[in-house]
Amino acid sequence: MFLPLLFTISLLFSSSAHASLLDFCVADPSLPDGPSGYSCKNPAQVTVDDFVYHALSIPTNTSNLLKFGVTAAFAPQFPGVNGLGISIARADLGVGGVVPLHTHPGASELIYLAEGTIVGGFISGSANTVYYKTLHKGDVMVFPQGVMHFQFNTGETPATVIASFGSANPGVQVTAFALFGNNLPSSFVEKITFLDEAEVRKLKGVFGGTG
Amino acid sequence: MFLPLLFTISLLFSSSAHASLLDFCVADPSLPDGPSGYSCKNPAQVTVDDFVYHALSIPTNTSNLLKFGVTAAFAPQFPGVNGLGISIARADLGVGGVVPLHTHPGASELIYLAEGTIVGGFISGSANTVYYKTLHKGDVMVFPQGVMHFQFNTGETPATVIASFGSANPGVQVTAFALFGNNLPSSFVEKITFLDEAEVRKLKGVFGGTG
Amino acid sequence: MFLPLLFTISLLFSSSAHASLLDFCVADPSLPDGPSGYSCKNPAQVTVDDFVYHALSIPTNTSNLLKFGVTAAFAPQFPGVNGLGISIARADLGVGGVVPLHTHPGASELIYLAEGTIVGGFISGSANTVYYKTLHKGDVMVFPQGVMHFQFNTGETPATVIASFGSANPGVQVTAFALFGNNLPSSFVEKITFLDEAEVRKLKGVFGGTG
Amino acid sequence: MFLPLLFTISLLFSSSAHASLLDFCVADPSLPDGPSGYSCKNPAQVTVDDFVYHALSIPTNTSNLLKFGVTAAFAPQFPGVNGLGISIARADLGVGGVVPLHTHPGASELIYLAEGTIVGGFISGSANTVYYKTLHKGDVMVFPQGVMHFQFNTGETPATVIASFGSANPGVQVTAFALFGNNLPSSFVEKITFLDEAEVRKLKGVFGGTG
Amino acid sequence: MFLPLLFTISLLFSSSAHASLLDFCVADPSLPDGPSGYSCKNPAQVTVDDFVYHALSIPTNTSNLLKFGVTAAFAPQFPGVNGLGISIARADLGVGGVVPLHTHPGASELIYLAEGTIVGGFISGSANTVYYKTLHKGDVMVFPQGVMHFQFNTGETPATVIASFGSANPGVQVTAFALFGNNLPSSFVEKITFLDEAEVRKLKGVFGGTG
Amino acid sequence: MFLPLLFTISLLFSSSAHASLLDFCVADPSLPDGPSGYSCKNPAQVTVDDFVYHALSIPTNTSNLLKFGVTAAFAPQFPGVNGLGISIARADLGVGGVVPLHTHPGASELIYLAEGTIVGGFISGSANTVYYKTLHKGDVMVFPQGVMHFQFNTGETPATVIASFGSANPGVQVTAFALFGNNLPSSFVEKITFLDEAEVRKLKGVFGGTG
Repeated sequence: MFLPLLFTISLLFSSSAHASLLDFCVADPSLPDGPSGYSCKNPAQVTVDDFVYHALSIPTNTSNLLKFGVTAAFAPQFPGVNGLGISIARADLGVGGVVPLHTHPGASELIYLAEGTIVGGFISGSANTVYYKTLHKGDVMVFPQGVMHFQFNTGETPATVIASFGSANPGVQVTAFALFGNNLPSSFVEKITFLDEAEVRKLKGVFGGTG
Repeated sequence: MFLPLLFTISLLFSSSAHASLLDFCVADPSLPDGPSGYSCKNPAQVTVDDFVYHALSIPTNTSNLLKFGVTAAFAPQFPGVNGLGISIARADLGVGGVVPLHTHPGASELIYLAEGTIVGGFISGSANTVYYKTLHKGDVMVFPQGVMHFQFNTGETPATVIASFGSANPGVQVTAFALFGNNLPSSFVEKITFLDEAEVRKLKGVFGGTG
Repeated sequence: MFLPLLFTISLLFSSSAHASLLDFCVADPSLPDGPSGYSCKNPAQVTVDDFVYHALSIPTNTSNLLKFGVTAAFAPQFPGVNGLGISIARADLGVGGVVPLHTHPGASELIYLAEGTIVGGFISGSANTVYYKTLHKGDVMVFPQGVMHFQFNTGETPATVIASFGSANPGVQVTAFALFGNNLPSSFVEKITFLDEAEVRKLKGVFGGTG
Repeated sequence: MFLPLLFTISLLFSSSAHASLLDFCVADPSLPDGPSGYSCKNPAQVTVDDFVYHALSIPTNTSNLLKFGVTAAFAPQFPGVNGLGISIARADLGVGGVVPLHTHPGASELIYLAEGTIVGGFISGSANTVYYKTLHKGDVMVFPQGVMHFQFNTGETPATVIASFGSANPGVQVTAFALFGNNLPSSFVEKITFLDEAEVRKLKGVFGGTG
Repeated sequence: MFLPLLFTISLLFSSSAHASLLDFCVADPSLPDGPSGYSCKNPAQVTVDDFVYHALSIPTNTSNLLKFGVTAAFAPQFPGVNGLGISIARADLGVGGVVPLHTHPGASELIYLAEGTIVGGFISGSANTVYYKTLHKGDVMVFPQGVMHFQFNTGETPATVIASFGSANPGVQVTAFALFGNNLPSSFVEKITFLDEAEVRKLKGVFGGTG
Repeated sequence: MFLPLLFTISLLFSSSAHASLLDFCVADPSLPDGPSGYSCKNPAQVTVDDFVYHALSIPTNTSNLLKFGVTAAFAPQFPGVNGLGISIARADLGVGGVVPLHTHPGASELIYLAEGTIVGGFISGSANTVYYKTLHKGDVMVFPQGVMHFQFNTGETPATVIASFGSANPGVQVTAFALFGNNLPSSFVEKITFLDEAEVRKLKGVFGGTG
């Protein structure tokens, strides 16, 4: 019968806890993390629920000045993607809503417009060229790694964007928050951005920055 | 004024055709391709339309035995993703429709269930363990690189899946097509899969295989 | 003399335990593992035996229905390859023996036929094209990452295959075991592979699957 | 003698033009480029001058409003680094000079302060935390990939910065130029950055932007 | 029937020449090469013979002073491995034969001793520690990327080594040839190696070096 | 106000200790290290001083036979570069000083000559070709990964070299130390390098080797 063979195979490729490396490495945030991601959860304790994420089914709250909400399924939120080089997020834009200018330092991004009509765009770094276009339901647009991009709702109904990323932890740097939402001294901001003092002070106030 | 500076910067980082490497490398299929993807289109001829893809907005035809249709936006179809390590596809499943068992040799996959109710699952290689779950609208599931996975519609309405990948060219290997849809001799198929001769011959007939 | 220089060099590049990163990272399975492999063993405790593996010198037992045996030297078995992106295995095929259809989700493979005469082949995913050939002693064949491949002994003597991989943990997914050797429900298997119920039930029985 | 051996070795590892891959791949901008860089120059025509770059020895012109000049030795300027994953640049800052806020989408950066006294800093994306410090001659600072960073001269003499990068083509995106130096419509800029209309119009004028 | 489905699938994933990226990228040395390898051969012209290599079945000539011969199956010789990150070679050592000290700048190496008895060893860079051991038929040893390693036959019969590499083009730098087999001036060699003039001149003579 | 939005954003992308992956992964040598580097320091304890390194501002001691001193800022010394793929070092060469022949197994190198006049050179592996040139203050030269390279002061004043690397831990293997500064038996050294016994014994004595 096959039993001797099966026994051989199972010995070689068995997955007793931490005895072998598997196809996946579900994040265990209680262990140290490193440059390539989180340490792996004991595979004996991995279940299908580590590979499924429900929160993207829930519309985010857009009752704010930007009329924008976001739910991320990156490795810290969705342990199953750890080490696999991909992740996903949902963004909702109310009528007139805006995804402010931002970058993902560690990943390129693909957006799929699930609902609504938006303008999506990015600014190419080297050439300082802008690429933007009105997108309709079902359209896809790609934003290269690390460059500034944005979206805003130009339709008369809410919009929903599904964004996928080429990293389990793409990071995010929102330009306005980076400039005005921390303790970078106002005099520095003026010097390195050419904005005038009044503008910087006003936006520091809006975004809760100090200095 | 800034002009001298701007002149300096523009000289250094300018994007005259093929004079510099940019943030992106839009595929030019008329040039040679290599292990890392297609050669880059002359950036002077790149437009926003290289970064936008419309075909995912169109439901695919599910009038076939599988009640399944798919539209891919990989590098060959969507030149803007070339070199960026991501791509996307849309799959439609009619009522009772099936995405047959398959692998992507070159990428992990994240599915977002845009409409309907399906079962999604994968078979982990090393441990030979199965992970599957019923997914509802808005749920996300991840399939690790290279392992067999599948989906089928268990709801009473059509389902639409948006699948994103951690490669601009994830590849695909459908198990049944690989076994029965080519000229791999039937005697080989039987020997390496343990299927019996009648079954192999029947499915060779269904999938158009020879030998 | 050189002593001052040697002292300087040794301070800079010394390898006191965990004080510096070395050329190698021998696996320590008692520490957490991550997406890039196992944690590194304290280099002070590394010996040449971490870099040498003897078990491939021993013919494997082929007294089973497949007339096939395998010994792997992947990172879990051979800690010296951890982090180095390579590994190796030995397969023996008795007369008529078969290496069943399988994939390695994480690595390309090169086989060197040390003894005997076999057919080696793979099925290219995208094009669904089959490449196979009779190999004689000393021949080499390459199987691209993630695609289905197989070997079987067509000679009148046992065959021995030395297989090397482009990963310290290539993983393995044997098609028949994935389909019939676990608790994937029979009805799922039929739906996603097009095999008929009788065949699935029979092979579930052979491979010990349930459901 | 060694001649038979030398003949064997030279046949195997010889470098006739395009007959073998070498340790290096000097850029040939007349051939197509791809995601991993430029095509390789015929090795028979490679000379030591492909691996040496002189222009960093020349102080750059800082007679501009920013009192800032830069000379880059990226793959387009310095073909020897093509494919090697590193590059270098020189920046000069007159008294009061500023390297405006910018990112490198494709590389982390290390600066070595060859002359002068500057403040160097970066804004971490995820945590929106600012790290900055006064640097003196000989100090080194690292800026992680893709995050906003800046420098300005706080000393009473000119400063010279040698910046090295973990990519042969790190790219650059200067925040102010991205916002104000192209045809991104003013109304878009306001919406995605929260800057007011007067400020945007003023800086569009300064940086030559339109729209 | 399946025909509509098959038609859809075949359109999406078809492999008309240069219309899609495949699982493999067989080297076409007549096209430009780049940092990631050779350009891909038109897949319509790829045959199984691109994936099979025969020359390792032939013992190499060891009738030289080193009693050493080698046959490499790297990407320039074996186009099927291009882009797959693996390659293989065969080395023969007559009685008393020596594989001289060398490095592979671009790959780690695994040796499988197919015949004979040898000493295999490497010198770890950072720690300047030597790891060596007598190997018998069937033993495996790993040499980390870029470090000096060697083998010599200590048995009473010829030895055959099968060496696999984690790169399609690992490169090779034989220490003695690098020092004495080119036009590096003798005075340089003495200065940077501490060897005395007589020794350098003698070995320049042996290895055909000039200067 | 923005507060609801800010609250949302801060929840998603917040950096509570070990709760999320950041732009950086400052080395914590008290935790396990792995193939991709050290584990990450708790981000709450990271300060700007983790990203700044002062020791390169201090001339190294060149009062030794080689008239050569070096200070490295690799991951073990400079925790901020961990995981970022770059590092840096300073080398000083007195008049007549020499950087002996060596390799970096894990990185390509770029040198910037901050002071003095030197000859810099490398020996290409595959082609066994030497590339060297006299460099003057401000010149840059690149050495491909893993190949032997060297520098020596040919001027009448001390020279200072700033070397940057495409790895946070490039490693180093000094040829003479590897041959003569450890316990590799003299008979082995002779056999694998072709040096004669007297020379090996003499240099073993100089470099403190045994055996």
